Parts: sequence; C-alpha cells; structure tokens
Amino acid sequence: MMVTNSARLDVVKLSEDEKSVVILDQTRLPNHEEYITVSDEKRAWDAIKKLEVRGAPAIGVFAGYAMYVLAQREANRSYDDFLETMTQKAEYLNSSRPTAVNLSWALKKQVGLIRERKGTAVPEIVRLLGEQAKEIDAENLAMTKKIAEYGVTLIKDGDGILTHCNAGYLACLGYGTATAPIYYGQEHGMPLHVYADETRPLLQGARLTSYELQKAGVDVTLICDNMASIVMKEGRINAVFVGCDRIAANGDFANKIGTSGVAVLARYYGIPFYTLGPSSTIDFDTPSGDQIHIEERDPEEVKEMWYREPMALKEVKSYNPAFDVTDHSLVTGIVTERGIVYPPFDTNLKKLFGRE
Amino acid sequence: MMVTNSARLDVVKLSEDEKSVVILDQTRLPNHEEYITVSDEKRAWDAIKKLEVRGAPAIGVFAGYAMYVLAQREANRSYDDFLETMTQKAEYLNSSRPTAVNLSWALKKQVGLIRERKGTAVPEIVRLLGEQAKEIDAENLAMTKKIAEYGVTLIKDGDGILTHCNAGYLACLGYGTATAPIYYGQEHGMPLHVYADETRPLLQGARLTSYELQKAGVDVTLICDNMASIVMKEGRINAVFVGCDRIAANGDFANKIGTSGVAVLARYYGIPFYTLGPSSTIDFDTPSGDQIHIEERDPEEVKEMWYREPMALKEVKSYNPAFDVTDHSLVTGIVTERGIVYPPFDTNLKKLFGRE
Repeated sequence: MMVTNSARLDVVKLSEDEKSVVILDQTRLPNHEEYITVSDEKRAWDAIKKLEVRGAPAIGVFAGYAMYVLAQREANRSYDDFLETMTQKAEYLNSSRPTAVNLSWALKKQVGLIRERKGTAVPEIVRLLGEQAKEIDAENLAMTKKIAEYGVTLIKDGDGILTHCNAGYLACLGYGTATAPIYYGQEHGMPLHVYADETRPLLQGARLTSYELQKAGVDVTLICDNMASIVMKEGRINAVFVGCDRIAANGDFANKIGTSGVAVLARYYGIPFYTLGPSSTIDFDTPSGDQIHIEERDPEEVKEMWYREPMALKEVKSYNPAFDVTDHSLVTGIVTERGIVYPPFDTNLKKLFGRE
Repeated sequence: MMVTNSARLDVVKLSEDEKSVVILDQTRLPNHEEYITVSDEKRAWDAIKKLEVRGAPAIGVFAGYAMYVLAQREANRSYDDFLETMTQKAEYLNSSRPTAVNLSWALKKQVGLIRERKGTAVPEIVRLLGEQAKEIDAENLAMTKKIAEYGVTLIKDGDGILTHCNAGYLACLGYGTATAPIYYGQEHGMPLHVYADETRPLLQGARLTSYELQKAGVDVTLICDNMASIVMKEGRINAVFVGCDRIAANGDFANKIGTSGVAVLARYYGIPFYTLGPSSTIDFDTPSGDQIHIEERDPEEVKEMWYREPMALKEVKSYNPAFDVTDHSLVTGIVTERGIVYPPFDTNLKKLFGRE
C-alpha cells in the first residue's frame, strides 16, 4: 500500500500467508525498530492495550485484519457457532480500548458482515472478512491520500511547517493526516522544512513524529513546545498542520494538549493554521468545543514518566489534561478527504456532507 | 536575612565563623537537599562553573562572600602583594562564567575596595571586604523586597499566577523576583494559586520553582509548557509573572525560552503580563530586542539530557535557543525595585532613572 518512492515503514500489515498481522511496536520507538506478529486474540488485545499499535486509523485497520486472522481458525464451525465466537472475540478486542471509535467501528463492520451473510458457507465468509479488512485499509490509505492532495495546495517550495504531536503515518497509516501534505510534497520534489514540537508530557513529537519524518528523509527539526513562538517569530514557519481528535459542528476541535496554544501563536504571528483529518472526525452532535470533555491523565506523567529520577518534589501537584480545545476562530481551514473547509465552519462543514 | 515566617532555604550564606561560604547545591535539587562548604578558590570556581550556585543575583552575592573568605587567608601579606593576589583570584573566579554580569560586577567591587584603601592595614581591608560582601547581600535582599512590595499591589486574594522558569529565591535570594509578590503575599495571609511551567529543556520550573514554592508552603501546580493555554482558557490565571535577563530601552526583554509564547497567550486571553527584576537589568545601550543576541545551547539537551534513553533518533536535528525576546507591546508592566513602569516604556523607563 506504500507509495514506492517513500521510505515509510510498514506499521500494520497482513503477513504474506495472511495468518497473522504484523505491527511495528510503537512503544519501542525511537530507539528500537521491532515488529510483533499477532495471530491470537490475547496478543491482539495486548497490542492495542499496551499502545504497541496506536492512532485511531491504525487501530481500526489492525482490528479489521485481526478479525480476519482470528476467523480463519474458526472456519470449521457451523454458521451459528462462528457468529457467536466471532462476536465474542470482537467484544473482547473492543474491551482493550473502549473509547477508541475506529476500533469499535471496524469490529462492528466485520461482525455485521458475518450477520449479513447468513446462508453463505463459513469459509467463504472468512474470505469476505479478508476482503473487507483490505478494503478498510485501502479506504484509509485513500483518505490520507486525498488529504495529502488537498493539503499540498496550501504550501509551496521551501515552506517551513510546524506540527504538534503525532498525526503521521505511525498513527494514521498511508500519508498520515497532518503529515500528509508533507510526504506528498516530498514525493513530488517539493523541498520543505518541518519543525516538530516534542509534545510533552508523552513526547509523541520527539519519539514518533521526528522519527517517522527523519526515516522518510524529510528535513525535520525537533523543538521543545515552548520554542514554537521563537521559530514563528524568526520567520521559519509558513503554515501549521495538526491533527484532530474531534471536530464540533462550529469548527472548534479537540486535539493533543498544546494545540490551542500553537493556534494562538499562529494567529499572533499571522501564520495560517490548519487541522487535517478524516471527515468522520466531524461530530455534528457536538455543537461546540464547550461540550467536549477533556480527559485528565495521571499527574505523575508530568513529573517522572520519562526521567531518570523524578523531576519535581513528590508533594508537588501537577495538572495533566490530555487534550485541549482550539477555538474555530483560530482555524484557517479544516482539511478532510472531502475537501478543504473554510469559515464560516458552522455552515460550510454541513455543506461538506451535502447538508444545508 | 530570611523573613521569620518563611520556610525558604538558605541558598548562599556566610558560615558562622566567616571562614567559608555555604551554598545549597542546586544541581542536586529537587531530589537531594545538600549544602556545600566553599573555602578555597578552586571550589568557588567549580561551584559557579557547575551551576551549583546559579542565578545572576545569587552568583553576585556568592562572589562577594567568596572574595572575603579568600582574603582572610592572605591577611599577612603586604598591601601590594595582597592587591596582586586578590586581583588574580578575582580574575580566576570571573573565568568560571565570563558572561555573568553580576559575577564580574561583585568581583570588581571587591577589588575596587582594595585599590581605594591603599594605606589602610591589610587586616582592616579584609574586614571591610566582609562588610561590603554583607552589604551586597543586604542590598540584593532589599531589592527583592521592594519588588515584592510593588508587585503585590498587582494581585489580590485568591488569584492564580503563572510563572515560567525560575526567578525565585534560588536564583535571586530574598523573595526572588518573579516570585517576590507571591512570597510577600503569602507572608501577609494572601491566598494564591501558582502554576509553574516546567520550562523545557532544562526543567527549571519543575526542578527549582515548584520545589521552592512547595517548600515554602505556597499552593503550586506544575504544568507542562504547552498547558499554559488551557489553564488560561479555564480562567485559572489572573496574572503572569516572569523574570528578565535583559530589558532593552524600548521595553523588549530577553528571558528564558518560552517566555514570549506565554506573553502572546496572556494577551490573547486578556491576562496582564508582568516582568519583574532589578533595575540593573535595564540596558539603555540596547535600543530594542532586535539587538539582543540569542544564545543557542547544545541541541542534545532537547533530545536526551533528562531521559533514561534518547527520546529522538540520533540523526534528528534539534534547535535549542536558550532565550527568547518578548516584544514590549505584550508587556503590561515592568516591576523593579524603583517602581512599576507602564507603557510607553521608551520614555517611562528613562523616567525611572530620572532621565527624560
């Protein structure tokens, strides 16, 4: 599925014999590039739970393939037995990360196929599960490619691009989302300079984004989050590209903690700020960012997770919101596989889906 | 020198017998609270070089005391010998951190005293060096107290205050500078909630600021730098207090990397933003921030200094500016021991010194 002239790694891939799913272990990056072969449900559950595979699209693709791999071992069962055991496996896999929307979506899609095919021979259903898993993968890849094609129109040769967290191919496969115009530009000979925020506290920018861009031969410079202001002031940044976890109906969107600060800086320095993601991220049932609940993670992550020894006194409180909401007034455009949406977002997001 | 109802630690102190300077080893914080006794010039040089004592005011006070301690061992010399050997020691100590303005200032002041006292008995000159060292200490303390008294008028009971890096008493002794209104408010029963940016890459906010505030019983919450936006948006912050390394004639000022980003966020969220420091920080020979050279530090600090293993690929470039310049248009006021300066800074900074 990878574009030929790219040095991007395989992140989630069906094995040659289609008996297992091979994933890049993202918990070992950037110092160790190791692959895990998943062929049973316990290992698949662990892979999601332990974040060995991460990023909503990558988890969805993984779940599709995992269901196909597991189904092959159950092909001798009667239809009813097969449906029951595969439903159980889907529920079990879903319990690894219950809030991951793409996970439950892909699992439901595979179980739905089994339900719809009552009367078809089970081995044929298994084959169809394989087909559907490949389709999920291909559709996701096509989504990232469309985002790349739209996004690349926003930049030009020599531009500097700032990104935050990881919305690259490690999370989204294909071209990634926030990184899509970068890889696409690179493939078409467009020289670009990328600045990656390290993204505290979990350092996805350092560990993952700078890793995947460097590996792909993109000119990338890692900075601390608090250096975004100086690189903008120094004229190094022509556009900001970030991912999105959820887009409200008015264009407010939730993304990794720190995104809203980058948006405020971009506005101050007059730099266009774009969020890039699949149109499935748009949630019309959420009127604005005010309704988006911000998950708080373990405060200890701020104080000790990556360090040799704790970097603050044990008694010191810390605050650790995982996401923040960026106000739509700070967003230049929302880039999806359906096209680029500009303000006013409340009406133009609806138009994207043919709703008025 | 410490205010009685404070739990602040001694950072730089002359020993009881006045034969040594005792310093808190800041390289061991926050996990180890250890003191170093300095009584010879090599150890004094190391203490500055290794950042065991750090912060411009603390280094100045330390240098004053160190010269007094070293002078006592040379009291049997003739005046000419004494002058020569003390001049050499001052030059040697100055070489430990040649760009530290307060270091060379304090050393010159002590050597100057010796020069002016030609004709006075050497043991008497030694005694006067002790007096002058104590004066330097006391004047610095008085400076931080005046900043505290002016600064505290800018806040009220229950306020939330954001600070960046360490401009506390560990760096500045007394009340610190950016922290001065906080400690002063605390002493006068004013409840305050302080948010400390961790301040990557060297984590002075986590290691030092949250440490000293917590130890002093101040309500402090540590956040990652990229969380400044969300805490402001959530209404937790009523004022931002930061230190300053150099203030240009137009009010632009250099401070730890990330300060300018905090200033932009404060402006966006409508929060007053103050820089606090001694009036000696104002440099009328620097017309604006454009003339302030930004020191770049070792890029490896971004990638591996504090981590168990490198957090980015070895080949990944990183950028590591130590400071940034905050534009005067983002500054609500400059708090010095001479008073609070408001815009227009170009004229009002001059007025502070009686220049028009």
